[in-house]
Amino acid sequence: MNPQFDQVGRQFVEFYYKVFDENRSGLAPLYRQPSMMTFEGVQLIGAEAIMQKLIALPFQKVQHVVTTVDCQPMLDGGVLVMVVGQLKTDDDPPHGFSQTFVLKNDGSNWFIFSDLFRLVVHSV
Amino acid sequence: MNPQFDQVGRQFVEFYYKVFDENRSGLAPLYRQPSMMTFEGVQLIGAEAIMQKLIALPFQKVQHVVTTVDCQPMLDGGVLVMVVGQLKTDDDPPHGFSQTFVLKNDGSNWFIFSDLFRLVVHSV
Repeated sequence: MNPQFDQVGRQFVEFYYKVFDENRSGLAPLYRQPSMMTFEGVQLIGAEAIMQKLIALPFQKVQHVVTTVDCQPMLDGGVLVMVVGQLKTDDDPPHGFSQTFVLKNDGSNWFIFSDLFRLVVHSV
Repeated sequence: MNPQFDQVGRQFVEFYYKVFDENRSGLAPLYRQPSMMTFEGVQLIGAEAIMQKLIALPFQKVQHVVTTVDCQPMLDGGVLVMVVGQLKTDDDPPHGFSQTFVLKNDGSNWFIFSDLFRLVVHSV
C-alpha cells in the first residue's frame, strides 16, 4: 500500500477542484478509458462521456469549498478519497456535496478510476 | 467486475444500518483483520479497534435514514458504495452524514475493507 496515500489524496483534491472551478475542460487528463463516474445517480463510463457531462453542467461560475478530506490506502497501491464540501454555482445559495474518488497510478501519473458525486439534499 | 455490484451494495447498506441501529455489536462479522475505518478523521485498523470505537459511541438510540446510495464495481470484484443520509441520535436534531465503503468478498461472504464516515457539518 502507498505510504503517501494521505498526501496523494489531499494534493489531488486541491488540484481537482482548482481546475474544475477555473476551467473544467482541463480535468480531461485525469479520466481514462476505464474511469467510472456516478453523477447524481447517472452512470458514465470513460473519459469522453465523463468530460461531456462535466462540460455540459449548466452553470457559468462554480466554486467548490472543501470541508473535510479523508483518505485511505488500497491494496493495489490506489488511494480512496472521500470529500465533504459545499458547492457554489452562479448566484445560487451554497449546496452541500459529497464526492468519493478512487485514484490509481499508471506508473507515472495518478488518474481517477472511480468518481461518485452527490449533492446533499435531504427530504426530511 | 461483479455484475451484481448495485444489488450487493444496496443490500449491504440496508443490512448494515439495520444492525447498527438495533444492536451495533452485531456488526463485528462485517469487519476483518485488514479492515480500515476513518471515523470523523480518526483512523482505525482491524475489526477489534473498529468495533471498540463503534460500541463506545456515546448515544443510546440511533437511527440512520438513508437518502442516496451509489455503487460502482471495482476491478478486483469488490464494490464501492457511497451513502448520503441523516443520523438521528437520542433526542438530538438529525445530522447529515456521508459514508463510503469498499466491500470485498472472501469467497463466501462480503466484508468491509474500507469505511469512511463523516458527519456533514459546514462552517459557512
